[in-house]
Amino acid sequence: MATSPSAPRFSGVRRRELSVADYERGVLAGERAILGRAITLIESARPDHQKKAQELLVRLLPHSGGARRVGITGVPGVGKSTFIESLGQRLTERGHRLAVLAVDPSSALSGGSILGDKTRMAALAVNERAFVRPSPTAGSLGGVARKTRETIQVCEAAGYDVVLVETVGIGQVESVVAQMVDFVLLLLLPNAGDELQGIKRGILELVDMVAINKADGENRLAAKQAREQYESSLRFVPPASRRWVPPVLTCSARDGEGLDRIWAKIEEHRRIMTEAGELASRRRKQRLKWMWSLVEEELLSLFRRDPRVAALLPELEAQVASGAITPTLAASRLLEHFETQ
Amino acid sequence: MATSPSAPRFSGVRRRELSVADYERGVLAGERAILGRAITLIESARPDHQKKAQELLVRLLPHSGGARRVGITGVPGVGKSTFIESLGQRLTERGHRLAVLAVDPSSALSGGSILGDKTRMAALAVNERAFVRPSPTAGSLGGVARKTRETIQVCEAAGYDVVLVETVGIGQVESVVAQMVDFVLLLLLPNAGDELQGIKRGILELVDMVAINKADGENRLAAKQAREQYESSLRFVPPASRRWVPPVLTCSARDGEGLDRIWAKIEEHRRIMTEAGELASRRRKQRLKWMWSLVEEELLSLFRRDPRVAALLPELEAQVASGAITPTLAASRLLEHFETQ
Repeated sequence: MATSPSAPRFSGVRRRELSVADYERGVLAGERAILGRAITLIESARPDHQKKAQELLVRLLPHSGGARRVGITGVPGVGKSTFIESLGQRLTERGHRLAVLAVDPSSALSGGSILGDKTRMAALAVNERAFVRPSPTAGSLGGVARKTRETIQVCEAAGYDVVLVETVGIGQVESVVAQMVDFVLLLLLPNAGDELQGIKRGILELVDMVAINKADGENRLAAKQAREQYESSLRFVPPASRRWVPPVLTCSARDGEGLDRIWAKIEEHRRIMTEAGELASRRRKQRLKWMWSLVEEELLSLFRRDPRVAALLPELEAQVASGAITPTLAASRLLEHFETQ
Repeated sequence: MATSPSAPRFSGVRRRELSVADYERGVLAGERAILGRAITLIESARPDHQKKAQELLVRLLPHSGGARRVGITGVPGVGKSTFIESLGQRLTERGHRLAVLAVDPSSALSGGSILGDKTRMAALAVNERAFVRPSPTAGSLGGVARKTRETIQVCEAAGYDVVLVETVGIGQVESVVAQMVDFVLLLLLPNAGDELQGIKRGILELVDMVAINKADGENRLAAKQAREQYESSLRFVPPASRRWVPPVLTCSARDGEGLDRIWAKIEEHRRIMTEAGELASRRRKQRLKWMWSLVEEELLSLFRRDPRVAALLPELEAQVASGAITPTLAASRLLEHFETQ
């Protein structure tokens, strides 16, 4: 709470409210403290904060969009944080500035199952050129997604040219994150036998690359076999772009093996998609799709909040579920009441 | 048009308008002519027909739901109509009553690329125990889907205990059809090398069975190899139910080989899902999801038709696409104008 613009008096000190101009100046200057507070502003549910956040974002828009936006997913235990820590250190050593964000709706309940504390990425946490931000611990998947999406923009405006968005491999989250990144990397374990190891349906169709982690020690052979199996199975997943067939690589985040090759592939993807104009069009589509999903979300919640709809809904849903009336009839009855207000 | 309740005077004869009670009696008696006219009523865009159709459907609901609802998909050339004809004949010989429907939004343009004429299924067309209905040749995918969904109910009320819904393998349609059937069968050709042969992304996750057709003559070996390839690739598609791993079979619709085994599998699926209560819950979820998708569709069209929204939309969409404003801001501006009317 100490970084919240609405922080109450605490030990006698009250942090000065920042103006939109203050935030803008501080973010563009790459001041970490201001960046942190700007993100807190974005995450705040208070309407006045929301308004201020949107003003800030519009001002920052001309300065955003410059980063490689990479989603990294995989089930707990696959070694995501070690991977990000190890890859991140390499990238910052090469002069990149790295922001690590997370989308983890469960954290609202669990208090943060991923990136819950920065000690998970001890080296990056104290790395001058890295910025690690825990998942927003509030709200629906849609809400968390909006905050993360807008946090990406602010980080880009602050000069971070690589943004890694970490998620747990629980399906719905991945499709939301795939809508805000340029590249989706799926981390898997060598024991490929366990059909996708709990990864949810549809994920293979979102990924731009599969990396089999922990390909070290006695796992090497298993990883090699897993790699072949995934390659053959991915041949049956029609690719998102005819210009890119998702490769399957192996790596050991622990030993730092294979990470350079993985990053080189990500850069290759970026080059190909940029030259083909697909990167720009992918982001354009993402923005429009995002606008419409926000509109839909709000329309539905308007609808559900409508007193007459709210009064009818339980009964009608029960009748539809039991097959007493048709879905078409139930929908039109609900809509009648909504429209004739 | 001759079967349309609103058919104009023609050769001096005008078909008597049927009352809802007439339709109900005729459908429940299994009168083909009345069934055909009931479906035409469902397909009609006229508000009074729509109202009448919904009244009829509610009356028929207690008598519907009894059929095996099977979706059959595959690219043109895979042999869907031969397969349906050959399987259908077998089923009617065993005493089943079979309805064959189609979902083909393109038919609105093409005049019906599938089931455009019944001569494609000559034997079924004259089969007393079979009812073949072309795809509704009007409206959006959503519209065609609604009509097909409700046509299934009417056919069930008319005593058809097997309903086959045919689609062309073009992705979006399959996910809509999967929402109205109990089982999705994907037909493929033996040359599996051509990654899913143009089948769209996501389909593998909808299918309950893959059948490799044209496994005859010199194709036998290729079909066997394709079968193994698809089996290994399906292992990496997490199944919809832990009770059912989609099998991969081969068949020759032309020679009638393998069709009995395929149908036996479909019956096995039905038995397992029924005993587990998954069939009932799948249909319950389908009905509720359907109601909500109708609500969403109408809310969005209300929104787009709103004059102030319509006036703002082009400019805001352009600004979002170009990245001049945030999707969040654009959405809230549009919604402001919509809500404050």
